[in-house]
Amino acid sequence: MLTLYYAPGTCALASHLALEYTGAPYEAKRLDFKQQQQRTPEYLRINPKGRVPALVTDRGVLTETPALLQYIAQSFPAAQLAPLDDAFLLGKVNEFNSYLCSTVHVNHAHKGRGYRWVQETDTAALEAMKAKVPQTMAESFTLIEEKLLQGPWVLGERFSTSDLYLYTLTRWLPGDGVDVQRFPKVAGHLRRMEAQPQVQKIAALHA
Amino acid sequence: MLTLYYAPGTCALASHLALEYTGAPYEAKRLDFKQQQQRTPEYLRINPKGRVPALVTDRGVLTETPALLQYIAQSFPAAQLAPLDDAFLLGKVNEFNSYLCSTVHVNHAHKGRGYRWVQETDTAALEAMKAKVPQTMAESFTLIEEKLLQGPWVLGERFSTSDLYLYTLTRWLPGDGVDVQRFPKVAGHLRRMEAQPQVQKIAALHA
Repeated sequence: MLTLYYAPGTCALASHLALEYTGAPYEAKRLDFKQQQQRTPEYLRINPKGRVPALVTDRGVLTETPALLQYIAQSFPAAQLAPLDDAFLLGKVNEFNSYLCSTVHVNHAHKGRGYRWVQETDTAALEAMKAKVPQTMAESFTLIEEKLLQGPWVLGERFSTSDLYLYTLTRWLPGDGVDVQRFPKVAGHLRRMEAQPQVQKIAALHA
Repeated sequence: MLTLYYAPGTCALASHLALEYTGAPYEAKRLDFKQQQQRTPEYLRINPKGRVPALVTDRGVLTETPALLQYIAQSFPAAQLAPLDDAFLLGKVNEFNSYLCSTVHVNHAHKGRGYRWVQETDTAALEAMKAKVPQTMAESFTLIEEKLLQGPWVLGERFSTSDLYLYTLTRWLPGDGVDVQRFPKVAGHLRRMEAQPQVQKIAALHA
């Protein structure tokens, strides 16, 4: 059985949703970041990066959201979470998921985790990073609105892991100082996602 | 036929190598970043992000290195660039490639592209970011050395796109103030990659 380690407010929500959509049995273990549970020796043996998500499988541990999303889609093909046999369409899914992990998530991280890239005592630099987050997040969601999100789902008519991941990062917009209503297609996507029973069930665990 | 847009010194080298390893015909078009050729209206129609790599296919354009690497591996399976039918091993490839794009590449980008995350007039913050790059890159390569690179190749005995991508980012270490010799396994990987004829041919185009 698969075991997912997650924490509320993190991108682990996307992989948690993917597992739920498969209908397969899995266990979800919640870490408390306020108590630094991602830094315990026990958890660092599971994921030496000290982050979530981490997915424990019979063959070992997988980390990094885009990797987990494709692993789950490929392991449970009946759930049709990715166009596995169409290299180009699967490329579009991975292009979108890579953009979220390497650009959008990184923009967001400059709000609360700027110490990754400057000394943590450099208050001025940390504040400078934090100040630009509303702008960088809005720029990323402008690109998503205008170019990437075809509607109703990311790929168009076909639902995929990219929808789970987009929903996860869209939830960060209010906290990042961006009004989602500026982006009508993204706002519509958020509403459609919030109407899904799987999302209602799992999002409650991430509150 | 596939057309790859690249620029020297960028992560586009990884996708360029993947195409070369397939043995399939492709065209590679070089952009001059000093002349801002990635910002021309013509190129922005190909890739609105104004970055490389971008791969033009018969069905449309793909961007983002992890997506291109898997698309190329899946389109030319005879080249055996990824364990396509093994969801867990492919997950390990994608985990590694995601880590390079979302963490290692991002660390590196804080040297010359810190203006993405603070106002470009904030010289002090830009310098603060730049100053930490040797530390963050060394930390990432410590994780690669100790936990991720199995040797001789990233996956162990099996060569994959992760080797092309690791080679590409290892080349950045001297410019980022990190001596690759601190990492014996990574240094050995670099030597093995440099001995490959495909690498010698394509790296010369990225000089």
